Amino acid sequence: MKKNLYDLMHPTSVAIIGASTKTGSVGNELILRATEARFTGRLVAINPKNEEICGVPCYPSIMQVPFKIDLAIIAVPASAVLQVLAECNQVGTKNAVIISSGFKEVGPEGLALENTIKQFAEENNMTIIGPNCLGVINTDEKYSLNCCFAPLQPKKGTIGVATQSGALASGIINILPTLKIGIAQMISLGNQCNINSIDVLEMWEKDEHVKQILLYLESLPNEREFREIASRISLKKPILIIKSARTQHGAQASVSHTGSLAGDDTTASGLFASSGVIRELYLRDLFNTAQTFVKCAIPQGENLAIITNAGGPGIMAADTADDYNIPLAKLTEATKKKLRAVLPEQASVINPVDVIASATAQQYRDAAEILLKAKEVDMLLVIYLYITGKNDLTIMKELQQIKQTVNKPVVAVMMTTPDFDNELIKTLPDCDIPTFSYTIDAVRSLSRLLDRKHYLESNNTSEINLKVNRASTEAVLQQAKAEGIKQLTTLQSLQIFEHYNLPVPRFGNAQSLREAKMIAKEIGYPVVLKLSSKTVTHKSDVGGVITNIKSEPELEMHWNRLMERLNVSGITDSLDGIVIMQQITGANRELVAGIIKKNDVHQMMFGLGGIFVEALHEVAFRPCPLTINDAESLINGTKAKNILGSLRGNLGADLNVLKEILLKLSALVTDFPEIMEIDANPLMIDSNGRIFVVDARIVL
Amino acid sequence: MKKNLYDLMHPTSVAIIGASTKTGSVGNELILRATEARFTGRLVAINPKNEEICGVPCYPSIMQVPFKIDLAIIAVPASAVLQVLAECNQVGTKNAVIISSGFKEVGPEGLALENTIKQFAEENNMTIIGPNCLGVINTDEKYSLNCCFAPLQPKKGTIGVATQSGALASGIINILPTLKIGIAQMISLGNQCNINSIDVLEMWEKDEHVKQILLYLESLPNEREFREIASRISLKKPILIIKSARTQHGAQASVSHTGSLAGDDTTASGLFASSGVIRELYLRDLFNTAQTFVKCAIPQGENLAIITNAGGPGIMAADTADDYNIPLAKLTEATKKKLRAVLPEQASVINPVDVIASATAQQYRDAAEILLKAKEVDMLLVIYLYITGKNDLTIMKELQQIKQTVNKPVVAVMMTTPDFDNELIKTLPDCDIPTFSYTIDAVRSLSRLLDRKHYLESNNTSEINLKVNRASTEAVLQQAKAEGIKQLTTLQSLQIFEHYNLPVPRFGNAQSLREAKMIAKEIGYPVVLKLSSKTVTHKSDVGGVITNIKSEPELEMHWNRLMERLNVSGITDSLDGIVIMQQITGANRELVAGIIKKNDVHQMMFGLGGIFVEALHEVAFRPCPLTINDAESLINGTKAKNILGSLRGNLGADLNVLKEILLKLSALVTDFPEIMEIDANPLMIDSNGRIFVVDARIVL
Repeated sequence: MKKNLYDLMHPTSVAIIGASTKTGSVGNELILRATEARFTGRLVAINPKNEEICGVPCYPSIMQVPFKIDLAIIAVPASAVLQVLAECNQVGTKNAVIISSGFKEVGPEGLALENTIKQFAEENNMTIIGPNCLGVINTDEKYSLNCCFAPLQPKKGTIGVATQSGALASGIINILPTLKIGIAQMISLGNQCNINSIDVLEMWEKDEHVKQILLYLESLPNEREFREIASRISLKKPILIIKSARTQHGAQASVSHTGSLAGDDTTASGLFASSGVIRELYLRDLFNTAQTFVKCAIPQGENLAIITNAGGPGIMAADTADDYNIPLAKLTEATKKKLRAVLPEQASVINPVDVIASATAQQYRDAAEILLKAKEVDMLLVIYLYITGKNDLTIMKELQQIKQTVNKPVVAVMMTTPDFDNELIKTLPDCDIPTFSYTIDAVRSLSRLLDRKHYLESNNTSEINLKVNRASTEAVLQQAKAEGIKQLTTLQSLQIFEHYNLPVPRFGNAQSLREAKMIAKEIGYPVVLKLSSKTVTHKSDVGGVITNIKSEPELEMHWNRLMERLNVSGITDSLDGIVIMQQITGANRELVAGIIKKNDVHQMMFGLGGIFVEALHEVAFRPCPLTINDAESLINGTKAKNILGSLRGNLGADLNVLKEILLKLSALVTDFPEIMEIDANPLMIDSNGRIFVVDARIVL
Repeated sequence: MKKNLYDLMHPTSVAIIGASTKTGSVGNELILRATEARFTGRLVAINPKNEEICGVPCYPSIMQVPFKIDLAIIAVPASAVLQVLAECNQVGTKNAVIISSGFKEVGPEGLALENTIKQFAEENNMTIIGPNCLGVINTDEKYSLNCCFAPLQPKKGTIGVATQSGALASGIINILPTLKIGIAQMISLGNQCNINSIDVLEMWEKDEHVKQILLYLESLPNEREFREIASRISLKKPILIIKSARTQHGAQASVSHTGSLAGDDTTASGLFASSGVIRELYLRDLFNTAQTFVKCAIPQGENLAIITNAGGPGIMAADTADDYNIPLAKLTEATKKKLRAVLPEQASVINPVDVIASATAQQYRDAAEILLKAKEVDMLLVIYLYITGKNDLTIMKELQQIKQTVNKPVVAVMMTTPDFDNELIKTLPDCDIPTFSYTIDAVRSLSRLLDRKHYLESNNTSEINLKVNRASTEAVLQQAKAEGIKQLTTLQSLQIFEHYNLPVPRFGNAQSLREAKMIAKEIGYPVVLKLSSKTVTHKSDVGGVITNIKSEPELEMHWNRLMERLNVSGITDSLDGIVIMQQITGANRELVAGIIKKNDVHQMMFGLGGIFVEALHEVAFRPCPLTINDAESLINGTKAKNILGSLRGNLGADLNVLKEILLKLSALVTDFPEIMEIDANPLMIDSNGRIFVVDARIVL
């Protein structure tokens, strides 16, 4: 972490450089926001033309301010920024937020200008947010800092918001009243010439005022660092993220708009999953989830109870819970009896509990209390539909009281009139029950609570002894390097897999037909014959793989034919031998595992194999080194899991073996980072559930 | 259609029976709604205790009303309903809406009561909506009928709403102001003892005031009738539906709440797709789509242009368009030039067009006009984020003016303050641009417009000559029936498939080893040997399928072994012969097709076959008889389509053959409705893309 970021966000004196008297200008809005927020420190404006702006004392330059300024907010034209920074530095103001645009985002000239600023900051040990940003907010009443030109003032809350889109900072502040939540801090990251999203995460890790983190990013500064810090934080506080520019359309939009480079989205999803970061694709879902995380604790169990005053919405809520695999609590007879005692005769006390249209606020309260206190209930969804007398606010008050006695998540779906949100804020400003207009949004956000619960519970820190042989592997790799080979031969790759204790079928290397026959005899027919060449990268292309050889005569025939082909092609020189391998029979389930190094991170891919790799795209990614949890979530991350159980007379696969295969492959690239690519494809599962790594390919 | 439903919805005199002076009671709310709506006909209240209620003249019973009543609204206790109906009938009031609950939904006694009412209505040719409903609304100002006890008055609009959940009628009326749309008619269906959802559809088919139809159903009265009428209507007006009770949770909730029986959801989805009915799973999506269908025409093409004043939201919008396969319009140089002329220098004129934060309403207008008039643009998404001066309403006014000059869909995402909706309604009540808070909702609803566009365009009414031989098939079936066989033998099933011109591999039936050898010789090895038995329903279970027989000696060995097994099991008596079939080689792609008769409708299933049928659940359903469009949408309805193209050296499958296979199977069950089940499993695709129906099973 740049050590001054904490200081930057907690100043006792602030200068707004480029402050202006012109209504609607950025320099004016900044002054207005700062004064409206009632900044607790000393605020000055900097502008040579004025003596005060909106009641704030004004100086011609920061050099003239008679006391030390902790934080400079810079909103002057891009061309003047470097000079202003130099002045700040001269008077000991080491922290700045550069609001000004006209840098990297406008092209090469702007980029050059930005680089000079970046360099100046580094040389002078300054801490800088921006340029091209909206500003920063800290609602801690010790500071009450709002140096951001978004039009509205956010309420105090517990979320730290960092966004790579300045405008979105404003969008988020606009939506907060509707969500009935506030924020602790907001940082508009801008072009991140000095402070980036990882620095912000590091600061918030230790800040007790920030209890949830909400990120909007278009790019990741460093995947490795992000993973390390995010994995650590997410065990303590939830991190919600939108990482945009994730599609081709989006990436193009991103390039043209912000000059940032879009990463590869499949690997980004793996990175977030591995780090415990909750990814949302859409703002709607991000905000719904954020509201729920702010107001609800992680539940002890998963069973949901539903209260409704209308049958149809109750049915739809049950459907939706099913869509998100949330079990409906099976109410005990005791609970049903209690419900019957307080509800009208026509009410249904089977979950969803239908309190019927005539339900009073007291009946809602009683039903909620009984359900929240029932052991079989872990979460409560309350649906209120305005049918007869309007009861929405009274019901919310009753629910709020009950909620404070039982620490289980309660969410409400209020199908009432549009003024509900405003009235709720007025009458119950501290209501900590998330409210939604639609059941889908409520149920989905509860499912996110459960996702987090599962993540925290699955945080398996135990180690598995993988029994790998590094020294022998080292020797194979040294030999390949000595020979200048980039793609290891089939034989070398298989040997390394064996050294890493991967379940390769039995094999041997034959230099002659005689040897081939001996090996095949020892292994037992049927066998597979595989070309192992130093130059042929796709052995299938030259007919270098012959499967299902059932007898010695067949072996002889295929051996001779292959040798003829190799002679014709003139590739016998680079021959490393011919691998004779046990044929795995009765294996009609194929998986694929592979690793590719991108942006200095090894990415593990796993999923459905065979002809379906490309056709069905049922593959997922995780960054290496894999944790046990990563391996498990990879295995469960696609429909590949559906073929792992027993299926049509085939036994289920040994999941521990599969998990270890992934962990061993990960260990291999972690031990030897010079490996750029690995293919363990296919992984075949035979009818007894045994898993074999049937082919190997390693590229340095 | 019950012929009086139109009359019921267009009365000139209405009696509210069970009207009450008690505030908050249903009988009072009904009177209030009817008077607030300013019913244009004569309204009377019926209650023996009063002379007038809320200014409406009151009579002791309908018998005392001195003029003829067209429509009776009945809100008396369940036990009194039959008597009231009898009185209505006596004075010639043949149309009634029974609001009262206490019928089918409360158990067997209620059901009995409901049946007496149902019978009375039928015997006396009455038209009845309900019981257990909220009422009806017709906003046509010639009638201004509101006999519904939902608390709010809906605005006049063009949607016909029919709902099986009364409460939801109220929920819909509550949400309409937020959606800024109105309704033409609303019918709360209740228990549907007389009028059901299909009757309502039939009425609205011809009603020019109803331009869109919105349904909430928990069950379908008759799938066959629904399909017929919905297919016809959906060519003229969009039908949007939520069919709930679609999951196990939901179906349970449905049984306990409404007594209706949940159907099978996979077939319901197929039914809707086949009928052109747009199904939504969640109310949020239903309302967003409804808003868009009311306000937008179906676009000519699919290309979307985006205007935004903020980069991040623009990127997310592009991502979202990609998620929904909506192409971004590639702007021509001419269009870009026009945009540059009206936008600030820093704006980006690549789509998404970023008008930047400082954009004025005039600049939004200019950009919208240029884009809407550009040939390369078919739809426009406008994003406004309130960053500096609040411009939301002005921008909407400008957009509204432009929209009226170009008939292309325009949707707006307004990331502004919560009062926006209310202010828009006040200042621009007739704004026909759907507005959303979130881009995802806007983009998704545009994708629904495109779904409808595709449906209307794909409405292929041409006929394919399938060249089937009904007479020979009839003969095979007659023989099977004569023998009392329920499941046809393999031979019979294959013969029928051949008669229906399905691509079965070459085969013959052998009664002896000698015959088997002759057949195999003619077909050519390898061959498959299949038991054809009148009693063995699963031939694989008795080892009755032997594949990949490569030579005559192998054939002899397997024949003899099979005969031994059959002798031991004592099933030689029922033997129909042994089918010798050509082995399809090099076919590693398997599909499955099948038909099952449910609720008197043959349901066609198609999807990924082999080991993946159960594991991946990539199958879809359509009701028979299949249209060409159904067959095509089945083929494209699952990931099965991904293995139909050329794949890893395998040629793409012949899609016309595949389409015809599905149409022929459909023709078979349509011609012979006594068939209960067909399995054409597997369908194998060889490396040349040829498709074979490798096995056949037909059950009567």
